Amino acid sequence: MAEEVPFQFLHNELVQYIYKSADSGETENGRNITKLENMGFRVGQGLIERLTKETARFKDELDTMKFICKDFWTCVFKKQIDNLRTNHQGIYVLQDSKFRLLSQLAVGKQYLEQAPKYLAFTCGLVRGALSSLGVKSIVTAEVSLMPACKFQVIIQKN
Amino acid sequence: MAEEVPFQFLHNELVQYIYKSADSGETENGRNITKLENMGFRVGQGLIERLTKETARFKDELDTMKFICKDFWTCVFKKQIDNLRTNHQGIYVLQDSKFRLLSQLAVGKQYLEQAPKYLAFTCGLVRGALSSLGVKSIVTAEVSLMPACKFQVIIQKN
Repeated sequence: MAEEVPFQFLHNELVQYIYKSADSGETENGRNITKLENMGFRVGQGLIERLTKETARFKDELDTMKFICKDFWTCVFKKQIDNLRTNHQGIYVLQDSKFRLLSQLAVGKQYLEQAPKYLAFTCGLVRGALSSLGVKSIVTAEVSLMPACKFQVIIQKN
Repeated sequence: MAEEVPFQFLHNELVQYIYKSADSGETENGRNITKLENMGFRVGQGLIERLTKETARFKDELDTMKFICKDFWTCVFKKQIDNLRTNHQGIYVLQDSKFRLLSQLAVGKQYLEQAPKYLAFTCGLVRGALSSLGVKSIVTAEVSLMPACKFQVIIQKN
């Protein structure tokens, strides 16, 4: 059995729970996305602290991003990011061609609109992890063909 | 890094989230325990269905309980139950001498009162798994010395 499944099921319950009580209004949806993003942020912070306890400091931003794509992603999703691209000016695109937290959603265009609520937690997760490594960022996600998914990380320079 | 950590962190966030909005009243506490138990129940159902897809039917109740203690527990917590006891009349006691979902709580008597909210989800998890295997039960938990923990399963005969 796939090891990531308990995490996936628990995440699914969390999304359901947060959305259950909500009316389907736009404002409420935005608020729920924020809640999920914040929870992801804290989990990301906690995880990266555990993961980097015995890791040497990263030599640069790209090195940090590679760690997120490999070790961090594998810890949470039991697979690596499939593709990492950067413009070398602080924008990174992380592509996961089979994103676990979407794999329970039925594949099909009509479910695309459901996708954002299954991505918010992970956006926060990446932002939290980077934040604990001293990198401030904005993280967004997009799905074109499920369950493939792209996370865009924009580094915030001080 | 321990593989169960993402699950543990996510569970922790869930407990925090459910308790955050609540007043500390008795009724509210009971309601939150029920919410967590219900979420555990659904996750347990989903997991056991995946886990037993290719498993032969269990020969009896004890055989089913052994599966919960070994395969099911390992899937979720990356360790087995340390001790299983039964009175052979439908009562089973599952002892986990280092229960993962308590290991983030500080060890000490003053934290014992916090323990029930970290056990409710798992009580539901076991009840949901058994339910999907056709076994109706009542599951309770108790902690004497953290992070050791006992789950008591009382089978409900029809």
